[in-house]
Amino acid sequence: MTFKVTILGSNSAIPTIKRNPTAQLVNHNERFFLVDCAEGTQIQLRKYRIKLQRINHIFISHLHGDHFFGLVGLISSMHLLGRKKELHVYGPARLKEILDIQLEASETTLAYPMVFHPVAQESNAVIYEDEKLIISTIPLNHSIPTCGFLFKEKEGKRRIIKEMAKSLDIPVNDYVRIKNGADFIDNDGRVYKNDEISDDPYPIRSYAYCSDTAYHEPVIPIIKDADLLYYETTFMQDMADVAAAKLHATTIEAATIAKMANVNKLIIGHFSNRYDNPMELVNEARTVFKNTFLADDGKVFDIDLS
Amino acid sequence: MTFKVTILGSNSAIPTIKRNPTAQLVNHNERFFLVDCAEGTQIQLRKYRIKLQRINHIFISHLHGDHFFGLVGLISSMHLLGRKKELHVYGPARLKEILDIQLEASETTLAYPMVFHPVAQESNAVIYEDEKLIISTIPLNHSIPTCGFLFKEKEGKRRIIKEMAKSLDIPVNDYVRIKNGADFIDNDGRVYKNDEISDDPYPIRSYAYCSDTAYHEPVIPIIKDADLLYYETTFMQDMADVAAAKLHATTIEAATIAKMANVNKLIIGHFSNRYDNPMELVNEARTVFKNTFLADDGKVFDIDLS
Repeated sequence: MTFKVTILGSNSAIPTIKRNPTAQLVNHNERFFLVDCAEGTQIQLRKYRIKLQRINHIFISHLHGDHFFGLVGLISSMHLLGRKKELHVYGPARLKEILDIQLEASETTLAYPMVFHPVAQESNAVIYEDEKLIISTIPLNHSIPTCGFLFKEKEGKRRIIKEMAKSLDIPVNDYVRIKNGADFIDNDGRVYKNDEISDDPYPIRSYAYCSDTAYHEPVIPIIKDADLLYYETTFMQDMADVAAAKLHATTIEAATIAKMANVNKLIIGHFSNRYDNPMELVNEARTVFKNTFLADDGKVFDIDLS
Repeated sequence: MTFKVTILGSNSAIPTIKRNPTAQLVNHNERFFLVDCAEGTQIQLRKYRIKLQRINHIFISHLHGDHFFGLVGLISSMHLLGRKKELHVYGPARLKEILDIQLEASETTLAYPMVFHPVAQESNAVIYEDEKLIISTIPLNHSIPTCGFLFKEKEGKRRIIKEMAKSLDIPVNDYVRIKNGADFIDNDGRVYKNDEISDDPYPIRSYAYCSDTAYHEPVIPIIKDADLLYYETTFMQDMADVAAAKLHATTIEAATIAKMANVNKLIIGHFSNRYDNPMELVNEARTVFKNTFLADDGKVFDIDLS
């Protein structure tokens, strides 16, 4: 089952030719979730050959422009391209007003239903749930109300061992029960315990997105043991004071959170324009948390089943 | 004296990787005027190495997103990059509200004064004037209130003939009077008529920007004899019915306006995404108006002194 994150923008506030500001696409089980939507995100989606209309859910972390100025354009393009199916937008309540006034001024009546879900940034709450995935908010510490998003799989089913199914000739009709933990009784009445014929479910995978935020330990219990963590890293450690004042984080701070939360892999991004070579930031973060990687526009992070 | 137009976006509503939606930069006498500002315009400016902060005046033709969704981002970037000097924005009154709500939601107080000038799209009125240039509105015919913009030079001064100035040893102090039409009397009392020592001023140059609009003859007296005309051309002529219904123009319509207005050169742009090769549109327009050119992202049109 697919679980991957595509970086659509990795810069902080100001777009450059090389790096767009923040947006990411999460593909879980071929469902596409857009996280933040800076100006130019729809161009980035085209550039990386991601079909706009496959996105049904968009999550906006906060109302700084570098996280949402591309949203109204994306929504408009979806309309102009003939979208009919629902689009769900999750974000601060005020965002609805911002979208409405712009659509109204252009006399645009969307040809598809846009369902807006106001999100309370200060609470850790479930805001989306399907049969395989739960998305919840992660309260962050930034200059305006901001939350991150935790994408966490539900516990999977047990996995029938193919060889056993074949050798015992288990009827397909029994599969669902066995996946749910039932034993199997063959035609001779012999009982096969569930753990003889099936393996444990795959471990639950999760992705935590934390941008923008200062160093903020209260996220740790929420993102604990995540397979993949994105934590904003606007500054190198020598600018820790500036970072604290602006409620942004540094390399060492992001890496410390990753370490304390025992995550598997850390992605850092949202770099200040002062840095020409973002690998410097990665290298500094690696002194605390080795498994740190660069958020680079177009880069895809796969969260493997293991 | 510079007078040139840089195309920053030439597509209609939906951005593609190759073509951004509408924005143009007019450089007159090293003053920079931005005309419309689709999403991604600030990236285009960087791409074509135009300094954001040199722009002091921005004109928005109407409130369809493909003409203004990039404005709030550009305004924000100017702020983040430390702008202090005034920025003047001219557009439909509602635009102010749209900018304000977004700046307010992000708790941004601009570090520079943004002066907003509401524009009445339905009238032909002067909205900007400096010592060398006048900018006025051109009422257009589109599905929402829309106006184009006419950039027209003021009449220049007479041009002193260098050879005469040298041979008669005309004092520099007399230059201003002569440029304003005065004769010159040398030390022996001999009178040189102004037209012996100076040439006529350069002809007045003008650029007319007309987007978006249907075929609309009332623009003709306003744009008469323009050196350069941009007239939107969303469709080929075989789609004239669709164009009329959507209040957009075709190749032949744009070319007919150019011909009737006796302009020197026509630029067409705002092409529908259905056209892979926009030269088809140029070729069709040329059957009516030979001096037609393609608006292509990054292309610069110089209006020469002649």
